[in-house]
Order: sequence, then C-alpha cells, then structure tokens
Amino acid sequence: MTSIAIVFYSGYGHTAKQAEAVREGAASAAGATATLYQIDKDGNLPDGTFEKLATADAVIYGSPTYMGGPAWQFKKFADASSKPWFTQAWKDKVAAGFTNSASINGDKFSTIEYFFTLSQQHGQIWVGTGLMPSNKKEHGPDDINWTAGFAGALSVSPSDASPEEAPRKGDLETAKLLGKRVAELAAKLKK
Amino acid sequence: MTSIAIVFYSGYGHTAKQAEAVREGAASAAGATATLYQIDKDGNLPDGTFEKLATADAVIYGSPTYMGGPAWQFKKFADASSKPWFTQAWKDKVAAGFTNSASINGDKFSTIEYFFTLSQQHGQIWVGTGLMPSNKKEHGPDDINWTAGFAGALSVSPSDASPEEAPRKGDLETAKLLGKRVAELAAKLKK
Amino acid sequence: MTSIAIVFYSGYGHTAKQAEAVREGAASAAGATATLYQIDKDGNLPDGTFEKLATADAVIYGSPTYMGGPAWQFKKFADASSKPWFTQAWKDKVAAGFTNSASINGDKFSTIEYFFTLSQQHGQIWVGTGLMPSNKKEHGPDDINWTAGFAGALSVSPSDASPEEAPRKGDLETAKLLGKRVAELAAKLKK
Amino acid sequence: MTSIAIVFYSGYGHTAKQAEAVREGAASAAGATATLYQIDKDGNLPDGTFEKLATADAVIYGSPTYMGGPAWQFKKFADASSKPWFTQAWKDKVAAGFTNSASINGDKFSTIEYFFTLSQQHGQIWVGTGLMPSNKKEHGPDDINWTAGFAGALSVSPSDASPEEAPRKGDLETAKLLGKRVAELAAKLKK
Repeated sequence: MTSIAIVFYSGYGHTAKQAEAVREGAASAAGATATLYQIDKDGNLPDGTFEKLATADAVIYGSPTYMGGPAWQFKKFADASSKPWFTQAWKDKVAAGFTNSASINGDKFSTIEYFFTLSQQHGQIWVGTGLMPSNKKEHGPDDINWTAGFAGALSVSPSDASPEEAPRKGDLETAKLLGKRVAELAAKLKK
Repeated sequence: MTSIAIVFYSGYGHTAKQAEAVREGAASAAGATATLYQIDKDGNLPDGTFEKLATADAVIYGSPTYMGGPAWQFKKFADASSKPWFTQAWKDKVAAGFTNSASINGDKFSTIEYFFTLSQQHGQIWVGTGLMPSNKKEHGPDDINWTAGFAGALSVSPSDASPEEAPRKGDLETAKLLGKRVAELAAKLKK
Repeated sequence: MTSIAIVFYSGYGHTAKQAEAVREGAASAAGATATLYQIDKDGNLPDGTFEKLATADAVIYGSPTYMGGPAWQFKKFADASSKPWFTQAWKDKVAAGFTNSASINGDKFSTIEYFFTLSQQHGQIWVGTGLMPSNKKEHGPDDINWTAGFAGALSVSPSDASPEEAPRKGDLETAKLLGKRVAELAAKLKK
Repeated sequence: MTSIAIVFYSGYGHTAKQAEAVREGAASAAGATATLYQIDKDGNLPDGTFEKLATADAVIYGSPTYMGGPAWQFKKFADASSKPWFTQAWKDKVAAGFTNSASINGDKFSTIEYFFTLSQQHGQIWVGTGLMPSNKKEHGPDDINWTAGFAGALSVSPSDASPEEAPRKGDLETAKLLGKRVAELAAKLKK
C-alpha cells in the first residue's frame, strides 16, 4: 500500500473541504490510503503525528492564504518539522500543496512557493497539478483548473461564501486530481 | 513636472492596452507626464531610450506572463539595464509593475515578483496598487481589483479574447489607479 | 519627527542583534526616532503595540529564516495585522525587511519575498538596501553587503556562532544602512 | 538507459563549468547518459534540440542569475518551450535547476524559483539537491553545499574570478551530486 499524508490548516472550513477533495483523489488511486492531519487553532497536531508522517510515502501541504502566505498555524507545523529535517527523515517522499483564498488571484502563488521551498529543505520530490488551464471566455468556476494552478491546486472561496458554497466544483475536482497524481507518483517511486 | 516612464512588452496587444491604461492614470495626476516605451519583438528599444529613462522619476515595468514569467523580450531589456545598474543610475526612482495573462490566476504573481526583484537591484522604491480586492460572490471582471493584485496590477485576457475584448473594465481601471498612484508618489518624492 | 517601527522575532539573539543595528541606523537619520517591537516566543506583542504601529511612518519587518520562511511567531503577527489591513491603516507607510540564517545563502530571499508580499497587502511603499554587492575575491564577512541583499538586509550567523560572534561586521553595517535609508525615505514622504 | 538533458546558458563560462559538473554527476549514475544543450548568445539552440528533449527522461535547467533572474537567452528558450507545453510533451519528466552568480547570496533563489515555476507549467517532477548545508564557522567554498541550495544547486563565482578559478570545489561537487540525484530519480521513474 502507498500511504499519503495530508497536513493542513483550515480557518473557516473552506480549506478543509479542499483537503478532503485531495484525500478523496489520493485514496482513489490503486493501492493507496490517504489520511488527513488537521493542524488546530494553536498550530498543533495530535501526539504521534510526526511518527506517522515519518512512515508516509507522500506528505502534502495545505493552508489558506492569509496575509500573503500560509496561516501561522501551518508555519508552526513547518518550524516543528525542523526535527525530521535534521535527520532528513522525509527525504525522497513526494510533496505537493494546495491553498484557498477569497480572491480569484491574490497571493496564492506565494503560499505554494513556500510549500515548495519547505519541501526542498526536506529533500522531497515535488509534483504539481499537471493540468492545463481552463482559460477561455466560456470557462468559469465549474471548470477544472479555471483557477489555473500548476505548481499546486488553487481554490477560490469568495469572502461571503460559506464552506457549503465554496470552493466550487472546478476547484474541488482540481484538488482531487492533484491527490490522485500524488498517489500515483508515490506508488511508482515505491516499487 | 513629474515624469513617468512605462517600459513594457506586448505580444498580442492585451498588455499594450493595460500599459495604455497605466499611462492614462499616471498622466491624470497633477503635474505629471507619462510616456510609453514599447520593447519590440527582438527585445530592443528605440535608440536613446536608456537616456530618457535616466531622467524619469519613475520606471514602471510591464509584460505578459509567458511560461511562468515575463516575456524574454522584457528580460532582454532587464539584462541590458545592467549598465545603469552598474552606476545605480535608477536609484530612488519609483518602481511598479503590471502583467496580463490568459488565466485568472496562473503564475502572474511570479512575474510581479521578478519586476520587484529587478527594481531592488536598481535601488528603486516599489509601490503596489494599494487597493482592496473585490472578492465577494457578486464581483466579476467589471470590478476594480477583482483579479486581486496588491504588489502590482494584474489583468486577465481569456485565451480566445481579442485585445478589443480584454483586459476587461475592472482590470483596466485597476491599471489606471496604479499609474495614478505611482505618479503621485513620484511627485511627493520629487519635492 | 519621523517615527520608525521595527517589528521582529529572534530565536537565539542573532536577529535581535541585526534588529538593533537597523534601529541604530534609523535613529541616526536627522529627525528620526526608531523603536524595536520584539515578538515573543508565543508570537505575541505587548498590549498597545498595534496602536503604536498605526502612528509610525515606517514599519520594518525582521525574522530569522526558519525552514525556508519567516518564523511562525512572525507569521502570527502578520496574520494579526489583518485587522489594520482591513482598514488599510498602514497604507503609504514605508516598509523594509531583514533576515538572518545560518547558511550564506539558503532560502533568505524567500523570507524577504514574504515581507514584501505582506507589505503590499498593506499598501506600503517598499525600500531595499540600495547597495551594490561586495562580490570580489578579496571580499568577506567584514564587507558591506557581502551577503548581497538588495530587496532587504541579509545576515549570516554560522550554526555554531553565538550572537556575540554573529552576525558579523559587514552584515551589521548593512543593516544599519538599511535603517538609515528607511528613515530618510520616511522623512521625505512626511513633508 | 536513462537519458538526462541539461539545457543551459552561460555568459562567461562559469555556468558552463557548473553545467559540466551536473552532467558528470548525471552520467555517473548507473545506466544513465547525460547531454549538454547550450543555448547561444541569441537565445537559440541547434536545430533538432526540441525533438531530442522530447525523448529525454529528465530536463535540467541552468543559467547565470542576471539582474535578479535567468538570463534572457534562457527565457527565450523557456518561451519557445510553449510549443511542447501546449501538448504537455514534457509531462512527468524529471526537472531540476542550477544557477551561478558573483555574490554569495544575491537573488539566486529567484532564478531557481523561476525554473521551478517553468517546470510546473510543463507538469514535470521537481527534485532538489537533497543536501544539508555546510554552515558552521569552519566551512567555506571547498565544502559541499556551503552555498546552501536546497531547491537547486547554487554556485558563487566572484566577479573578478575567471572560469578557471570559479565556481569552486564545493559548488562543483554540489552540482555533481544534483546531477546524480536527478539521474537516479529518472531511472526509478522509468522502471
């Protein structure tokens, strides 16, 4: 079995929904299990999480984009990962990332760049969406990769939209496809 | 008079339209003149352009986002600017940037980051849009800063939209406001 | 009087030393006062700090680079600044940044990029070091801008160097010059 | 056999030396061949290069850092790669990057970020150095990863050093190790 870990923070539920889509996608790959690890409001994870991450084949990062970067709770997790970094315990694990914010563009790319930078400290192998964008006049939030993330999965949840309303169909489908792609790559590398 | 220079490349005319909006905005500020310098297909500018840039109070950068960054023609200009860099001839001039691409998000932020990085080599003072985003459910391409650029002005021109059709109203208005903001800051610094 | 605020986090004292150099430089400018606001281990600032920042003419950001970005404690401050962001209370204040890490290069630039991104959400005016690099064979850690930061001041504190030993002479002088440059720009803009 | 392609530009010979080290490292992996494709002064590659890249298992990117990013000649190649991008012809190929500049730090990270961004448009799998930094007081340019690149291999060639003198021992060894790592990953993925 290939084991995919998704470590994420969610402030209001939108990123949690995106994380769940990534998980579904990862779990849909042949021979894969996928587990969500949700960082809490204080930036902590349940005891034993780092031990579990050490055995995963992929560690995927997720956070809303707040003030131009990942939420501080996520960064607290990242800083705590200096312990496995010190022994390069995550080396060669697959990495990927996703983020949600209210604006269609904004600074989402900055968050993905950070996830990538973190992954490279860990010696991980980064994989993006591998998707073309939906960028014709006819396209909208129902289309796959309308939000046009390449390095990671992006989603848009308008500032007055509840987690029931957003992220929308296209962004969730994109998140699923990213999860699946990660799991397939992890399986290939495990052989 | 405050003199604002806008150096840009445009592949198909969309970024040129955005550049013109920046120019209009800059020229609308009290006591300001604004001039467009268009980089050609070979990455060159008319003779004497660097001399003119040396006398400007602000140098604004613009390019479409191609393959995740500014067009090579713009980069050729940037590399040629190593000459004024060597004498820090642009030090303390105001800087700003704008970019256009087909997707709503994509890698536009990467292009703006590059413009910023270039400006800092030159010792310039960077100013962004200073705008809040239009990110509610009711918002769309007609609204100011729907594309949600903070560090620079962003615009979306769907891949099948002509320069007559896009960038759209909100993005053009955003570009104008950026131009005006640059000119006002340059005027303040000139006193 | 021009008032310069320096908000920073320091884990082991190296960044605090760099912050103090920035403060000295800022305070050395004509008509300027400069104040350090140190974020604590829990990511908090003393009560009333945000009120004081609201009256400053410049807000400078500082943090060590941990795991490829600013320390989570700094990010907690940045996320808390969504309150002044909402009313654009820091709009047009001058911004700048500095960071320290153990490696000569590493991911310091990523931290400066984040500070810049944050500043642009706030509508601030960014200023870098405005310095040429010291990059000849004869140069070393005693020289100004050997570490070669343009967008912000960078410093190197080897992993086994105490805060008494590092940051070293050149990096501290660079930090001072950045502080002075910020204060001079803030004074110009205040007139 | 695993086939590794290294596409690079070199202005004065320093980056060419780094590229050769990457090639040596890649060729040293079991069952691997590695080929250098040098972009010329006009930003062009020999006819037939894109056909060869299409058959490679990995495409590695290299360029000096000029004015805060890759040389325009490299960007011209990147823009020309919109053709294989359109059909996602490089999807799932391994990607990596390296850069050289005169300063120990400077904006090298910006160039690596660009290479990464480009690779993600192409749907490639990114791998970094996977190396710990040499960042103690005793370390210097003879040590592996003194320049401390994680996302890519970095090298320092002082502005008055000839290509015979720099990049120095540690940076070249780092480049070799990156090449080897890429080839080993490509071999794993090919199975």
